[in-house]
Parts: sequence; C-alpha cells; structure tokens
Amino acid sequence: MEIIQTGVTDVQEHCCSSLDERKSHHSSKTKAALTARLNRIEGQVRGIKGLIEKDTYCDDVLNQIAAVQSALNGVGKLLLTEHLKSCVVERIQDGEVEVIEELLKTMNTLMK
Amino acid sequence: MEIIQTGVTDVQEHCCSSLDERKSHHSSKTKAALTARLNRIEGQVRGIKGLIEKDTYCDDVLNQIAAVQSALNGVGKLLLTEHLKSCVVERIQDGEVEVIEELLKTMNTLMK
Amino acid sequence: MEIIQTGVTDVQEHCCSSLDERKSHHSSKTKAALTARLNRIEGQVRGIKGLIEKDTYCDDVLNQIAAVQSALNGVGKLLLTEHLKSCVVERIQDGEVEVIEELLKTMNTLMK
Amino acid sequence: MEIIQTGVTDVQEHCCSSLDERKSHHSSKTKAALTARLNRIEGQVRGIKGLIEKDTYCDDVLNQIAAVQSALNGVGKLLLTEHLKSCVVERIQDGEVEVIEELLKTMNTLMK
Repeated sequence: MEIIQTGVTDVQEHCCSSLDERKSHHSSKTKAALTARLNRIEGQVRGIKGLIEKDTYCDDVLNQIAAVQSALNGVGKLLLTEHLKSCVVERIQDGEVEVIEELLKTMNTLMK
Repeated sequence: MEIIQTGVTDVQEHCCSSLDERKSHHSSKTKAALTARLNRIEGQVRGIKGLIEKDTYCDDVLNQIAAVQSALNGVGKLLLTEHLKSCVVERIQDGEVEVIEELLKTMNTLMK
Repeated sequence: MEIIQTGVTDVQEHCCSSLDERKSHHSSKTKAALTARLNRIEGQVRGIKGLIEKDTYCDDVLNQIAAVQSALNGVGKLLLTEHLKSCVVERIQDGEVEVIEELLKTMNTLMK
Repeated sequence: MEIIQTGVTDVQEHCCSSLDERKSHHSSKTKAALTARLNRIEGQVRGIKGLIEKDTYCDDVLNQIAAVQSALNGVGKLLLTEHLKSCVVERIQDGEVEVIEELLKTMNTLMK
C-alpha cells in the first residue's frame, strides 16, 4: 500500500475530540472524494460477482480483484494521509503522544 | 496476501477452453463461497461510506478499510488456489506452458 | 510489513537537529538490538548464496529468502517505531509539521 | 513483491529429482545473476550497520532498508520465475500435481 502525498486537503481539516467520542472533520471536498471512490469500488465488487456467475476465466477475475485491491488501497492512503496531517499532528501538539501507539497499531493492520 | 490451502474444492473443477473464449467451471460450492464473500464485502464498503458520512474518527474507518482489504485478499486467495489446481495444471498437462507467463503476470498484479 | 509496539525503548531516545545535519540518538540498547539483527541477516544472505551454489531445490531457497525478508521487516519496524516515538513527535512539538510529508514518503517506500 | 517476466533463462533450466533429494539445475548465467545480487545485498546490509553506528537520521536509514527489501524481492522474483518455468512445469508434466500445494505454501510465505 503506497501512501501518496495528496493535494486534496484544502480547508484545514481538523479532528476534535470531546469527552465521549472522537470525531474527524474532513472538508466536504475530501468526503466527496472518499465517497466517490467507495461508490466505484462497490460497483466493481458487484461486477466481479457477475463475472463469477458467468464462469469467466479465473485469470480475468483475478485481475479484476487486483483492481479493487488497488482502489481500496487508494482510499486507505487518502484517509491515512488526512489523518496524519490533522488528527495525529493536533493530538501530538496537544500533548497526547499516545496517538503514536494508536497509529502504529493501525499501520500494522493496514500493512498485513 | 496469503495463499491458503483450502479444502473447498470437492467436485473436480476444470477449466475448458474452446477456440474463442476460455471459461472456468467452478463447483457450485466454490461459486457459492466466492459469491457469499463478495456480498459481505459489498456490505462492508457501504458501511464505510456511512462511517465517513457521520465523521467517524479516521482511525476507526482505517481499521474497517483494513478489514475489507483482508476479506478481498481472501477472495483472491481462494480463486488463485482454484485456478492453480484446475486451469494451470490442466493447461500444463495439455502442453500449454505459456500459462506460466500468464500466471506470473497475474501474480505480479495481485501482489502490488 | 507489520509495525510492532516494542518495549525496546528505555532511555528516552531523542533526535536532535543542528543546522547542517539531522542526527538520531538511539539508546545503546536499541543500537545493539538493531546491529544484532543486521548481523544475523548478513549471515542469512551468505547462507542463501551457499544454497544456490550447491543447487539446492528452489522451494527451499525461496523459503530462506522469505525468512530474510521477514527479518529485514523486523528491523524496519523497530526503527520506524523508534523514529515515530522520538524524531516525529519532537519535530511536531517543535512546530516542524513538514516531518509528516517526510514520514508519508518513507512509509510509501517501505510499503512497496 | 512483483514477479517479473525475465529473459534471464537461456539454457533450459531443469529440476531433477532423485529418490533422496530434489535438486535444481540453474544455468550458470542464472546462478551468476542470483549470486551477484546477493553480494550487493550483503554489502548493503553492512552499510546499514555503519549508518546506525554513526547515528544517521532514522529516515535515511529507513530508506536504505527499503532499498534492501526491494533488492531481496528482486532475488525472490527471479528465483520464483525460474522455479515455475522449470521445476513446477516438469513435475506437473510428470504427474506430480502435489507441487501445486508446495507452491501455494511457498507463495504464502513470500507474500507475508
């Protein structure tokens, strides 16, 4: 999974935390970009189901699965980049260095 | 991506090729297993869209994305295992060694 | 590559930067752990050369290569964990948020 | 890890098996290519030890580790390609389809 430096962030994203639940505040632009990508992925997954139903040659289906993996990686990268630039920086600046442990754990899960 | 040795194959899968288009013939059991997994993935992707819409904390969303990546890897593994055990073996036994080049290319794409 | 939460850091690692060149100051314990792992990897690589020289069956050699990959991932994880906990936190707290771009770039390279 | 289609194979590699031990017979050209790459990797690992000893900034060391990972992946790919084209094809043609289980297991290990 490759983390890309994106220029998608415009309005300063920020991540506020209240006593009960931590929230993130992506710009509408980032939210729209993430949602559009996920819509496409949803369609691709449905497409793969159709290929399998029609006994499409395995190799062709495997390449479609690789395409969805790549698209999903793209969503993960975009979100991790936004997270690093907003939540992680803010929480470190607020003295909450335990965010690093959280980050390490999530990076582990993403990179399996 | 981890290739698992599955015992899902029961009725001998086989992959027949006609002059115009190569097809694969998974057992109904394998097709049902693949379709069930893909249905779940489709639902997970929809779920992630909902999380983003509700400004869920990035770290939680990232972990959901990792879960879908893992599920998708599972589908890829299952299909690659069936492909190796049927199409690839058959085509090599029929003297079509060029299937190895096709396999290398697809493994490349899957492992990016 | 999996990032492990290690308890290796004892004495507070810190990363100081002077005008000309950025340095890191691992504890002697961390430096010894990294060096010991790298010594083992060096020996494993030499071992693989010997296997190839003796026409060892490819599958056995491939498994040795996977072992070295895993060991090397371990070194990368250990170092990235120390880096996040020291340099990255310090530089963010000093207002140098550009360290995030550097981190994203390096994570990209490591995860190819 | 990306499996590349290499043109390195010239003289037909083949993989013979005797009752006691399975051997592979790479061409001298393939053996020289593998050994040269491993020599370079060994040198790179020694280089990284030196960087750590001199307290080189973590990010620079991490990028060196990524370079060795990439070089090691290259060796793995080259060997897996040769293995598929020789041992795997031969054993399938000899009716030893259990080589597929061995291949799946090794691909699993390599792709962790």
